[in-house]
Amino acid sequence: MCDAADLTARLIRCPSVTPSEAGALVLLGDLLADAGFQVHRVDRNGTPNLFARWGAKGARSFGFNGHTDVVPPGDLGSWTYPPFSGHTEDGIIWGRGATDMKSGVAAFVTAAIDFVRETPPDGAVILTVTGDEEGPSRDGTTAILDWMEQNGEHMDACIVGEPSNPEVMGEMMKIGRRGSVTFTVTARGVQGHAAYPHKARNPLHALTAYLSDLIAAPLDHGTDHFDPTGLQITSIDCGNPASNVIPESAQAVVNIRFNDLHTAASLEADLTARAARIAQATGVTLTLQAQVSGEAFLTRPGPFVDLVRGVVAQETGRQPVLSTTGGTSDARFIKNHCPVVEFGLVGAYMHQVNERVPVAQVRQLKTIYQRILENYFA
Amino acid sequence: MCDAADLTARLIRCPSVTPSEAGALVLLGDLLADAGFQVHRVDRNGTPNLFARWGAKGARSFGFNGHTDVVPPGDLGSWTYPPFSGHTEDGIIWGRGATDMKSGVAAFVTAAIDFVRETPPDGAVILTVTGDEEGPSRDGTTAILDWMEQNGEHMDACIVGEPSNPEVMGEMMKIGRRGSVTFTVTARGVQGHAAYPHKARNPLHALTAYLSDLIAAPLDHGTDHFDPTGLQITSIDCGNPASNVIPESAQAVVNIRFNDLHTAASLEADLTARAARIAQATGVTLTLQAQVSGEAFLTRPGPFVDLVRGVVAQETGRQPVLSTTGGTSDARFIKNHCPVVEFGLVGAYMHQVNERVPVAQVRQLKTIYQRILENYFA
Repeated sequence: MCDAADLTARLIRCPSVTPSEAGALVLLGDLLADAGFQVHRVDRNGTPNLFARWGAKGARSFGFNGHTDVVPPGDLGSWTYPPFSGHTEDGIIWGRGATDMKSGVAAFVTAAIDFVRETPPDGAVILTVTGDEEGPSRDGTTAILDWMEQNGEHMDACIVGEPSNPEVMGEMMKIGRRGSVTFTVTARGVQGHAAYPHKARNPLHALTAYLSDLIAAPLDHGTDHFDPTGLQITSIDCGNPASNVIPESAQAVVNIRFNDLHTAASLEADLTARAARIAQATGVTLTLQAQVSGEAFLTRPGPFVDLVRGVVAQETGRQPVLSTTGGTSDARFIKNHCPVVEFGLVGAYMHQVNERVPVAQVRQLKTIYQRILENYFA
Repeated sequence: MCDAADLTARLIRCPSVTPSEAGALVLLGDLLADAGFQVHRVDRNGTPNLFARWGAKGARSFGFNGHTDVVPPGDLGSWTYPPFSGHTEDGIIWGRGATDMKSGVAAFVTAAIDFVRETPPDGAVILTVTGDEEGPSRDGTTAILDWMEQNGEHMDACIVGEPSNPEVMGEMMKIGRRGSVTFTVTARGVQGHAAYPHKARNPLHALTAYLSDLIAAPLDHGTDHFDPTGLQITSIDCGNPASNVIPESAQAVVNIRFNDLHTAASLEADLTARAARIAQATGVTLTLQAQVSGEAFLTRPGPFVDLVRGVVAQETGRQPVLSTTGGTSDARFIKNHCPVVEFGLVGAYMHQVNERVPVAQVRQLKTIYQRILENYFA
């Protein structure tokens, strides 16, 4: 039997800060090949990615997705144990990636290996692991999905193993995600002396009026499966060193996490119309540049969601809430390929110093994944 | 007879970009000493300053104030003639400082020399010229005034020779100035993920609300001699490169040009109270740091103002408006010493490329200054 906790510690010892592979995918690839999986490295533009399939191509298949890259450890001196040590003591595994999400990858990899050995299914198990989820995500899971399409590979359903539980195992699974779009707003006015504002057009006044309008009222009040859309100003920058000078231009960055009432395009239209009104009132031009991280999506409750939910309830004693909260994940790419849900560990300590995970939790997650596979192919 | 235009050109040839003396004060000192003035260099902390008196110490005295330092020329390639050439052609003197304010200094220096030679007064003429008006102004005119106080020197009235006419000679003189204070506002919240704003406190939302409140309504509607108080946001800066992160802190800079309804302290109290309300509503702390450039002041209409106004009307055919508009000048320091007004050239081209001045205008200003001296001591 493969131990998920042991594999987690071994993965942590690979210092795979995005975009470094650092041996993590090589380790997984070797393990899966030994277990009878067909393994393909699907690297693109230097980003390391792994595809592995057990069973026949084209057979009914169940997939998992995860990532082995991690965010930087930050201040090394603040860690109780070195962040890439995988130090295990008193039932706790310490290190960067302990929750996000080398443990999740270790859980589904070991679950898949044990499942195909103990109860070989009439179908295929597909594992997709990227080395760039924490970074730009341009050549990560999307590259694997592109390669799969080109090579006739397909998942009929997929679990993304990201941490999904806020506090305790079993309380939450994710059946969709809000979309995310970032607007860079550039205000361009007319420079001038602060004592003669009538000869200038202050871009910061227009920008303040614009942003004030954006945060004045919520964009909606939520839907059946979604929280209200959230808008956050994440930066405003001007860089004018002279307090007696009205600057010519300034920029703001606005990030919107939106539910299924919106699309990135509908939000851009809304924000552009508001910008035009401010521009007309102030003579300051406001131009928007949109960067879409992902559209909102939802895997509607049904047999697949019920299957995962049932196993989680059975193994943890909790009925997981069907949530769509949180940041983006690679599920936003997979939803174009097949139905996808997210279930993983408790998300505490993600991206923090002293990231750590209980051994028992990793092993419990492995058991859940293995039961899901058993039920899916039963 | 001393020619003001010639002296202007000679002064322009000294590249006295703040804080460089570049020979400008040496030139004036030599000229004034030759004309019988007692000349003292009153440098402080490396800033060059000149004090000159004709007549007895303690006698009834009339003073002038100006500066020989200039702002940098900017892009040299954009100038028609080199900025420190003092090139004179078709009745125009070209160069950095041609209007602000080597011409004004040249006009009062030559007026004073001719006045004491042609009609020696029963009193004293005092000239104060600094090499730092465009810079921090900490060791400029204030250093001269400090030195005068320590040495028993006193002006009974003073004209600052800064450009005071917007378009044509004689249309405007300044009898006061709005005050100027700059507030740096630091908003400090709680950093967090843009997808989980309830776990963070966005300083940019608090800052936007605060600034929006500040610009929502004018601080007043002006007074008898003053325009309304003006408030300009001159910078907002956060420097957050991550659009998925709510930043911890951000800064804004707000410059206020205020009339005699306010003091820097009363404005600080007002803005601090508004900040406290936003802080209470948002949980984001907003701290203010004030930098006072000068309080508002007014030389009330009376004999001195009438004298200057009368001469200007006589020499230009225009009744100058008694204004308090514009940026700060060293009059803000002199007003603590004696009644002060400002009258000088037309302010076009100040701080611009191809700064230039008509020869005739400089000579006319010299005549006006000389007539003022004659009337004052008549």
